[in-house]
Amino acid sequence: MHLRNPREGYPKYNAQDSAGSFTKICDKLIDECVRDLDKTHELPVAEKKWLKKMLEYNTKGGKMNRGLMVVVSGEKIFESKGLPVDSDALTKLAVLGWCIEWLQAWLLIADDYMDDSQTRRGQPCWYKIDNVKQIAINDAFIVEMFVFRVLKRHFWAEPYYHQLVDLFMETTFQTETGQLLDLQCMNLGLDDFTEKRWELIVKYKTAFYSFYLPVALGMTVAGVDDRKAYDAAREPLIQMGIYFQAQDDFLDCFGTPEQIGKIGTDIQDKKCGWLFVKAYHSLASPEQKKYLDKHYGQCKVDSEEELAIRKMYKDLKLEDVYQKYEQQSYDGIMAMQPGVEAANLPWAVFDVFLKKVYKRSK
Amino acid sequence: MHLRNPREGYPKYNAQDSAGSFTKICDKLIDECVRDLDKTHELPVAEKKWLKKMLEYNTKGGKMNRGLMVVVSGEKIFESKGLPVDSDALTKLAVLGWCIEWLQAWLLIADDYMDDSQTRRGQPCWYKIDNVKQIAINDAFIVEMFVFRVLKRHFWAEPYYHQLVDLFMETTFQTETGQLLDLQCMNLGLDDFTEKRWELIVKYKTAFYSFYLPVALGMTVAGVDDRKAYDAAREPLIQMGIYFQAQDDFLDCFGTPEQIGKIGTDIQDKKCGWLFVKAYHSLASPEQKKYLDKHYGQCKVDSEEELAIRKMYKDLKLEDVYQKYEQQSYDGIMAMQPGVEAANLPWAVFDVFLKKVYKRSK
Repeated sequence: MHLRNPREGYPKYNAQDSAGSFTKICDKLIDECVRDLDKTHELPVAEKKWLKKMLEYNTKGGKMNRGLMVVVSGEKIFESKGLPVDSDALTKLAVLGWCIEWLQAWLLIADDYMDDSQTRRGQPCWYKIDNVKQIAINDAFIVEMFVFRVLKRHFWAEPYYHQLVDLFMETTFQTETGQLLDLQCMNLGLDDFTEKRWELIVKYKTAFYSFYLPVALGMTVAGVDDRKAYDAAREPLIQMGIYFQAQDDFLDCFGTPEQIGKIGTDIQDKKCGWLFVKAYHSLASPEQKKYLDKHYGQCKVDSEEELAIRKMYKDLKLEDVYQKYEQQSYDGIMAMQPGVEAANLPWAVFDVFLKKVYKRSK
Repeated sequence: MHLRNPREGYPKYNAQDSAGSFTKICDKLIDECVRDLDKTHELPVAEKKWLKKMLEYNTKGGKMNRGLMVVVSGEKIFESKGLPVDSDALTKLAVLGWCIEWLQAWLLIADDYMDDSQTRRGQPCWYKIDNVKQIAINDAFIVEMFVFRVLKRHFWAEPYYHQLVDLFMETTFQTETGQLLDLQCMNLGLDDFTEKRWELIVKYKTAFYSFYLPVALGMTVAGVDDRKAYDAAREPLIQMGIYFQAQDDFLDCFGTPEQIGKIGTDIQDKKCGWLFVKAYHSLASPEQKKYLDKHYGQCKVDSEEELAIRKMYKDLKLEDVYQKYEQQSYDGIMAMQPGVEAANLPWAVFDVFLKKVYKRSK
C-alpha cells in the first residue's frame, strides 16, 4: 500500500480561472481512468482510445454548474469551520465536482438514448455517432462505475471514504427512481399528470443530484458528520431544485430561444411539466381541458394546436401564477435560514445557490 | 440504529431443497426492496408494482447456478475453517447468491436490448414487453443499484461489508469492460477476432462474475482476508470460466438443440466465438479463410453458407481440437491444486465447479 498523494502533479484549482482550471482536472481524471485499465484490465489500445474519446465527448462541454458548486460550497464550509482551504483541499473538492459531472454524463447518455434525442450541448448525442449506437448503453454503465473508481483512487484513505460511496449510491438510486417516474408518464393518461407527480419526478430526477449532492459532498470533505446538519441542508436545497425545474419548464414555453438555447418542445413531447400540471388540474375550463386531452402531446412543433396551447397558457395567466410560485418558493427557502444556521452551516452556501437560481428575476 | 437481524422471518435455506428454498429467499428480497421505497422514496403504488413485476420477471426463472454456488462454496470454506454453518450463515450466503443473480439479471436486460434479442429463459425479453421498451434500460440501472441496497441492508453491520461492496464494484466493472470488448466486435474485421481477443472477452465478460465472484463471496463471509488466498482462488476459477465459454461456443455449433435449449446462431451473428477464432487464425486454408471473409456474419440461419461453415468446422476437425483443449484446460486446473491448498482453501470447492463444468465429457 503506497501512500503517494493521488493528486500529485495535478493542476492547481484556481478560483480566478475556475472553469479553466476545473476543466484541466477532468483531463487528468480521464487520463488516470484510462491508464489504470492497462494494468488491471489488459485492455487493448483501441478500447482505451474508445473510452478516452467517450469520456471526453460526454463529460466535457457542459456548464459545469454542479461540479463548480462542490468547490464553492466546500470552500465556504471549510471557512466557516475555521479549516484551511489549501490547494489539495480545493483539488479534492474539484475531483468530487467531476464525480457529479460524470454522474450527470452517464445519466444523459442513457436519457438521450431512451428519449431518442438528437443533440446535446450543441453536438450529436453520443449514441448518434457512427460506430456507437447501442454501445452507448454499456458506455453509460462504464461511466457510472468510473465515478466509483475515481472515488476509490482519490479518497480510499480518507476517514469519510465510505460515506462518499454511500452518498453517491443513494443519490444514483434516487435519480433512477426519478427517471422511472418520468418514463412511466408514457404509460399514463393526462389525468395522472398531477402537480404532486410533477414534484416527485423533479425532486428525485434532478434536485438530489444537482442541488443536495454538491453541498453534501462539501460537508463530507469538511468532516461534518452530524446527520441533522445534512437534514437541515437538504430541505432548502431540494426546494431550490424543484423551483429550478419549474423555471426550466416555464422557460420552455415563455423563454426566448436565446435564453434556453433551444426551441421548447414540451407540448409536443407530452411532458409532465409545471405549466401543464398547473393548467390542466387547476386553471383550465372544461373546454380547455378537452382541448388539451385532444392535442397535448399529439401535435407537431409550431403547429396550430401547439400555438393554441401556448396561447391557452398565456390566457390562463400562467406567467402571473409562476411569478407568485417563484416568490413563495424564495420566501419558503429564506424561512429556512435559522434552521440551517442552527445546524452550524454557513448560509453563504445557500445564498450562492439562491443567486444563481433565482437570478433571472431577483 | 436498530440491531434487529435483517433476515428475521426469512425462510430457512434447506440443502435438501436448495432450488426451492433459494427461490423463496429471492421473493423476500424483492418484497423488502420494494417495501423500502415507501419510506424512503415516496414511490406511488403503480411504480412499486412495476418494480416488483420487473424484478420477478428478470431475476427468477434461471438455473441459478451462480447463486447456488455461493452457498455451496461458502459452506465448504466455513467447514474447512472449522466454523459452524448455522441457518443464518446459510441465509447470508443465499442472499449474496441472489446478489450475483441480480447482477446477472441487469446485465441480461441490457444485453438483450443492445443485441436486439427476442427471448430469454423461454419468455420474451423484458424490453419486448408492451409498455416496457426503452424503460428497460433504466430498469437495468435500478437493478444494479438494488444489488448494492441489498448488500447494505443485510451486511452493513458486518466487518466485511466494505469488502463486499468493493468486490461487487470491481466485478461489475470487469464485466462491463468485457461487454465493451464484445460490443466493439461490431466495429472490427475478422482479422481482429483473434484467440487472444476471444479469451479477453470471455474472461472479463463471463468468468469473473460467474466463477470467481461466487467463491470470493463465500471466502469473504467466512472471514478470509489474506489477499494471496483470493489470488490463488482466482486463477483456476478464471480458467474454468474461460473453458466454460469455449464449451458454450462449441455447443452452439456441435450441440443438439436439446442440449443448448436453442438453435445456435453464432455464425450468422458474426460472433467472436471459440470455433471461429480457431478456424480462422489457426486451421483454415487460404480458400477457407476467403469463404469465411465472404460469408461469416453475412448469412441467414440454415442457409447454404451457414451449413457450409458448419461443415468447414467439421472438416477442420474442430471437434478433436476442442477435445484436446478441454483436456489441457482440465489438466491445467488440476495442476493448480497444490497452490490452492497452500493458500488454505479447500479443493472441494473447486472440485464442485470442475464436476459441473466438465461433466458433459468427464
